[in-house]
Amino acid sequence: MAIVVQKFGGTSVADAKKIRRAAKRVIEKMQAGYQVVVVASARGQQTDELVRDALELNPNPPQREMDQLLSTGEQQTVSLFAMALEAMGSKAISFTGGQIHMLTDGIFSKAQIKSVDSEFIRRELDQGKVVIVAGFQGVDEYGNVTTLGRGGSDTSAVALAAALKAEECEIFTDVDGVYTADPRIFKKAVKLDEISYDEMLEMASLGAGVMHIRSVAVGKRYNVKIRVRNSENENPGTIITHEVPQMEGILVSGATIQTDMAKIGLIGVPNVPGTAAKVFARLAQAKVVVDDIIQTEINPEKASLSFVVAAAELPAAKAVAEELKSELHCDNVFVRDNIALVSVIGVGMRSQYGVAERMFGALAKAKVNIDSITTSEIRISCAVDHSEVERALEAVCLAFELDKPARQRRTA
Amino acid sequence: MAIVVQKFGGTSVADAKKIRRAAKRVIEKMQAGYQVVVVASARGQQTDELVRDALELNPNPPQREMDQLLSTGEQQTVSLFAMALEAMGSKAISFTGGQIHMLTDGIFSKAQIKSVDSEFIRRELDQGKVVIVAGFQGVDEYGNVTTLGRGGSDTSAVALAAALKAEECEIFTDVDGVYTADPRIFKKAVKLDEISYDEMLEMASLGAGVMHIRSVAVGKRYNVKIRVRNSENENPGTIITHEVPQMEGILVSGATIQTDMAKIGLIGVPNVPGTAAKVFARLAQAKVVVDDIIQTEINPEKASLSFVVAAAELPAAKAVAEELKSELHCDNVFVRDNIALVSVIGVGMRSQYGVAERMFGALAKAKVNIDSITTSEIRISCAVDHSEVERALEAVCLAFELDKPARQRRTA
Repeated sequence: MAIVVQKFGGTSVADAKKIRRAAKRVIEKMQAGYQVVVVASARGQQTDELVRDALELNPNPPQREMDQLLSTGEQQTVSLFAMALEAMGSKAISFTGGQIHMLTDGIFSKAQIKSVDSEFIRRELDQGKVVIVAGFQGVDEYGNVTTLGRGGSDTSAVALAAALKAEECEIFTDVDGVYTADPRIFKKAVKLDEISYDEMLEMASLGAGVMHIRSVAVGKRYNVKIRVRNSENENPGTIITHEVPQMEGILVSGATIQTDMAKIGLIGVPNVPGTAAKVFARLAQAKVVVDDIIQTEINPEKASLSFVVAAAELPAAKAVAEELKSELHCDNVFVRDNIALVSVIGVGMRSQYGVAERMFGALAKAKVNIDSITTSEIRISCAVDHSEVERALEAVCLAFELDKPARQRRTA
Repeated sequence: MAIVVQKFGGTSVADAKKIRRAAKRVIEKMQAGYQVVVVASARGQQTDELVRDALELNPNPPQREMDQLLSTGEQQTVSLFAMALEAMGSKAISFTGGQIHMLTDGIFSKAQIKSVDSEFIRRELDQGKVVIVAGFQGVDEYGNVTTLGRGGSDTSAVALAAALKAEECEIFTDVDGVYTADPRIFKKAVKLDEISYDEMLEMASLGAGVMHIRSVAVGKRYNVKIRVRNSENENPGTIITHEVPQMEGILVSGATIQTDMAKIGLIGVPNVPGTAAKVFARLAQAKVVVDDIIQTEINPEKASLSFVVAAAELPAAKAVAEELKSELHCDNVFVRDNIALVSVIGVGMRSQYGVAERMFGALAKAKVNIDSITTSEIRISCAVDHSEVERALEAVCLAFELDKPARQRRTA
């Protein structure tokens, strides 16, 4: 019997009415002949409330205790979900991460899944039960509760789908799927029917909040078909899957923006091997996550090295940069705290020309100044002034016809 | 190094301020040279809120899922408690029932503790940590979460004190200790310095809400010195311990009332062996908890059998009685739903005379009619009309001088 994993996020289980609606979707799937494993998040704002309770007692709470605390939110949801299913006539059983031996490493608050006892779950499924698993959590080898970090329930769901060789992993959320761009900003954005793992990874890392990046990476690695869909309607959603040849015909799948970014430049660092390595090692030590990196030669002896960070990490990044300024005898450090990134993503870029040209042309026509440019194999990002980013997104979306389904574009 | 177990109930950990105050008591105990194990309940009204959430989804929720749900309340408290201790400079670690292998039977919602891994706790204590254990919960042999029933945190604490051979088990609550009678009703009641397990068992079963009866039974069985004390002051509280000879000098240690009781009588049942057994087996099947039982012979063929139940259980008990009426061909069934019990308790009754006489005399003088009388080795209970029970309690308390410390009583 084929297995489907259905993941319901916090907004989809926020109250009794929503839990019942989610339970109804589970029953429909069973009636369609599937065994169903549910992964659920904490209800509504519960996790935020628990964090607030913790900080009231300890501004710097031990991570182990934080994980012990936060994991209760999901445990509550899954037991309530099981009760709802039983009331609707289905057999159901709930499990914590520990109970299904969702074994992780011991990195509290950011644990990585190592293995899961899929046989244990199969035995329950084979007894005709819906198995409901608390997302976001696992246990380390000593039995300590660990959590997987923000968005970790997506990762739990995809990892379970992989372990159980599920036909599909449905991620229920409050939007119809993945859009060509954020519809709150680019109103004409259209929903994608499918998108490749690589594109979704770029989209997720560039601020498209619909799925957590680690869950997509797990899906790619274990070849899990992921379907992002709305818990409140029957829209088939967006399928995230391996790249298929026809995807290459689509030049650009989506565009994203990242706001609240800052840029730091070290002007005149020694143009010798190892400089960049030293700079980024020091930033990593200070736990600063660096986004884009740009290095250019000024002259044979000197180079300029700049990088983009989240605005929240600017103070830490700036402190490191100031230290390095004297250590490396560089000429100057500059900081820009009002930048944003606009990016286009598409596997089609690998085989087709003219994407960069068209993007820069669109921005020029919209009179948006480009501060700097970075690219990957399937992405082009431009740093622009914060105040111009929404206009930039709209210009780029229209240039790539992201207001139309892929098959209707002139340039598909 | 000697170990002390400190148990904090829901009102003692209801908010951040109270958790900090409880943590302060733990630190004081450590500074006095003890290793400390804390057992904590769910914060304030949390358990009631979770029960309400559950019933909204399922009026008859599966007990396994109910236990999975309710256990989260204690898990939240213990992690927050650990954070508070760490913020105050102590090393601390929290555990769920499952994490310390608090193994129980599989009777959800009313599980009995079978064993606990005391070595695991000792290792953490020997690292200088305060060990904070979620009360009220355990796991069965399959890893399912179980709960011990209302008041179960007291039982967790006493069981841990037994397993760890703790010097003392302190039960922190919102009163100064165990009183000769409920001070809300008999204003002149005095706190007892000590009380025997047997007396406390009778008091608890007769409605003195200060401690859960099962925890006292565990304490008696494993010889755990229990101290009931107020979390908000330094009063030394009441020690519950084995009976010592001088306790016998005290005629009556305390008096209690139980309200919301009902009495059912079966008049004219066959006066043959096995009748009572049949009646109480049927009541047990219907999960009716029977308090006092009175059987008297009417004539050589017929007897009258009556029993007292909580008013809430009257409908179920009455249904059983009506069935039995026709099966046993008894003459009549009567129901009194407005009775209350007033009881006096004291191990001194075993060796001294005149207790019953003095009690009945006090009630007669107060013009309280006695419906029926039952006794145990260390207790006398009178059923009276509900409206007269507070007056009855006062009369009995004054007759036995329960407004004075034991050593000041004329009749001690």
